[in-house]
Parts: sequence; C-alpha cells; structure tokens
Amino acid sequence: MQKNRGILTVVSGFSGSGKGTMMKELMKKHEGQYALSVSATTRAPRAGERDGVEYFFRTREAFEQMIAEDALIEYAQYVGNYYGTPKAYVEEQLEAGKDVILEIEIQGALKIKEKFPDALLLFVTPPSAAELKKRLVGRGTEGADVIDSRLARAVLEAEGVEQYDFLVVNDVLEESVEMLHQIIQSEHHRVSRRLGAIYKMKEELKGFAK
Amino acid sequence: MQKNRGILTVVSGFSGSGKGTMMKELMKKHEGQYALSVSATTRAPRAGERDGVEYFFRTREAFEQMIAEDALIEYAQYVGNYYGTPKAYVEEQLEAGKDVILEIEIQGALKIKEKFPDALLLFVTPPSAAELKKRLVGRGTEGADVIDSRLARAVLEAEGVEQYDFLVVNDVLEESVEMLHQIIQSEHHRVSRRLGAIYKMKEELKGFAK
Repeated sequence: MQKNRGILTVVSGFSGSGKGTMMKELMKKHEGQYALSVSATTRAPRAGERDGVEYFFRTREAFEQMIAEDALIEYAQYVGNYYGTPKAYVEEQLEAGKDVILEIEIQGALKIKEKFPDALLLFVTPPSAAELKKRLVGRGTEGADVIDSRLARAVLEAEGVEQYDFLVVNDVLEESVEMLHQIIQSEHHRVSRRLGAIYKMKEELKGFAK
Repeated sequence: MQKNRGILTVVSGFSGSGKGTMMKELMKKHEGQYALSVSATTRAPRAGERDGVEYFFRTREAFEQMIAEDALIEYAQYVGNYYGTPKAYVEEQLEAGKDVILEIEIQGALKIKEKFPDALLLFVTPPSAAELKKRLVGRGTEGADVIDSRLARAVLEAEGVEQYDFLVVNDVLEESVEMLHQIIQSEHHRVSRRLGAIYKMKEELKGFAK
C-alpha cells in the first residue's frame, strides 16, 4: 500500500515532565521519520538562538501579515509577544509522509484539534505527582513562593488533558521515547487513516468476483 | 501507576489473511501478556480437538442455559450449531490485566463494540487484493465456481470494516505480529483508559499546591 500522509502530532506536558529531552531523543533515534515544527515569534533571539532552528524570528509586522494571510496553524500572545506555528512547513512535511511534532501547551493544542480533527494529542507526565513536585522544587535553592507558583502552574498545565488522545508516562527516558514512537506509528494503521486503501481493495475484489 | 485492566481485542480478517497464524505467533512471542478467548459450541469435536482448548464443547441444552443466564458476550448460529464467547473467562483475564484476543467475524465484532465500547477492533488483510486472490485461489486444484464463491465471500467479509479501529496488513508475518502487538500496547496509554490515574495525579498536585 502507498505511503501514508504524516500525522500531525501535538505534544504537551508538565514543565518538568522531560518532554523537551524526549523530543530530541525521538528525532535522533528515528531520523527521517519525524519533523519538529519550528515556531515563529516576535520576541528577540536569546544568545545562541538561530533563526529557523529554535524559532523563526519575525517582526511584529511580518507576524501580523502571517495572521492576515491565515498562514499560521495557531498563534497566541504571551508577555507581549506573538508565538505561532507556520502552516506551510507543517503541510510540506506531512505531504512528504513525515510525522510532524508540535510542542505546545494544552489550550493551543485543543484549538489545533478543532481545526485538524486528525491531529494526535499526546500528554507527557512524570510517573507520579510526588516525582513532579521533586522536579519542580529543584535543588532546594528556590523559596517557598517560587515552589508554590510552580505547583499551581502544574495544576493549570493539566487543565483539559481529558480531551487528549494519549498519556505518555516519562519514567525511564529510553523507554518513554520508544512508547511515544510506537503510539504515533500505531496510529498510522487506524482505519480512519486508511480508508483509501480499504476502498481500493474492496473495488479490486469486486472486480475479481465478477 | 497501577496495572491497567486488559483490553478486549477483537480480531477479524479475510479468510486467507493469515490471522490464525498471527494469533498463534502473538501468543508465543508475548506469553503471559495475552489470553486467547476460547469459544463455546454445540458442534461435535473433530479428531484431535480438546474441550477447553479449541472449543468448549457443550450440549444444546447447556448452551441455551448460558444464553438464558446472559453468560455469553456474543453468540450466533451457523449451519445449525451455536457458537459463542463465554463471558466469565474473558472478564477474569481482563481483570488480571491480560489483553484478551477474540477472533470473530465482523458482524459479531460490531455487536461486541456496541456492548463494550472500550473493545479494540482490528482487521487483518493481505497486502493487496491480488495477493488475497492468489491465496484464495490456492494451488490450482479448485474449480472456477469454488474460486468465485471464495472471492464473493471475501467481499462480504469486509462489509463494515470502516467501523473498525485498526487495519493490520499481514505481509511479513514477524513484522505484522509486532505491529499488532504495538497497536494493542499503545492503546493502553489512551487517555480514556487512564482517566483514573489522571484524576489521582491532579488531586495530589492540588494537595501540594495548597
């Protein structure tokens, strides 16, 4: 059967879930199979950040032009700057059969699911709340107020997770990366993504049976 | 997180798809993870068939008693005999965390999905219609009428496949068995199957954040 179109895969997760490291490992271990979507932003590059790698750095005017042209899958403002996902690159990669990974928070992810019902939504979580707390608290250098605000943010970060497709528990990095890979690859065999192949086979069989 | 309940997995497919061999391989390669459901029937055992292995062989009275007691997940009559899936064994295995494989045709499978929306429906197919025809035609010993009736049956066997969850193409046996395994295991991470764990984590985080 012919090559499937890639799957738009949105990954969210708690700060401290280790999802950034997981994505890097996934790209490294299964090179050529995945493409990581690069966001556009109006914020200034930080030291070492390269245009087109960490972000596409754009002026406010250029960004608003993209909004006007419906050239973004989703966008949001955060602390006075725009952040968004350019549509063209994602479409290109999907067409080429690559699974495109988009790392964004839940609210943006749910907006994407509305526009692209075929998108796959994955949520990464540490093995337990206690483990997450441990990671958020850090190495004892932060004050109680910083810790409290991190925990409060974690509660907010999980708002809406019930609408996600899959939960990936990140305990042992190598295992959770493989789990992520298997979940996405299994999804290629979903009947709703293979209807074309199914109809083709049925037609051919009917032809034979005549 | 605690052990998941097993997944009721229904496997259907064309005659000639090789699904029987796939199931045997799956059981062998991942022993302890899966349980194959054994059907009950009123037909007489054939040479070599053992009660409780190939089938539970039951009298017509005993079978109708099971129907009356709602002790079957599904049942049907075929050429004057009853065939059905005893509920108790399946429930036991699912509770023990085993994924229970049920090999039945599409119409029975869709009835199961209605009663158990959590059931996973998989359809096994050869790589192409031409390959299926080749397998159905056999080694040139059958007449044209036998071949025609096999092809006509294949068309019927695919009726309703659009309502299935996954399509597994059986080309290279070892690969397709692994694919089947990955699809079922990925399904354990589906958010709708992990809601308990998610609520627990959220409650614990809220407790920490106070």
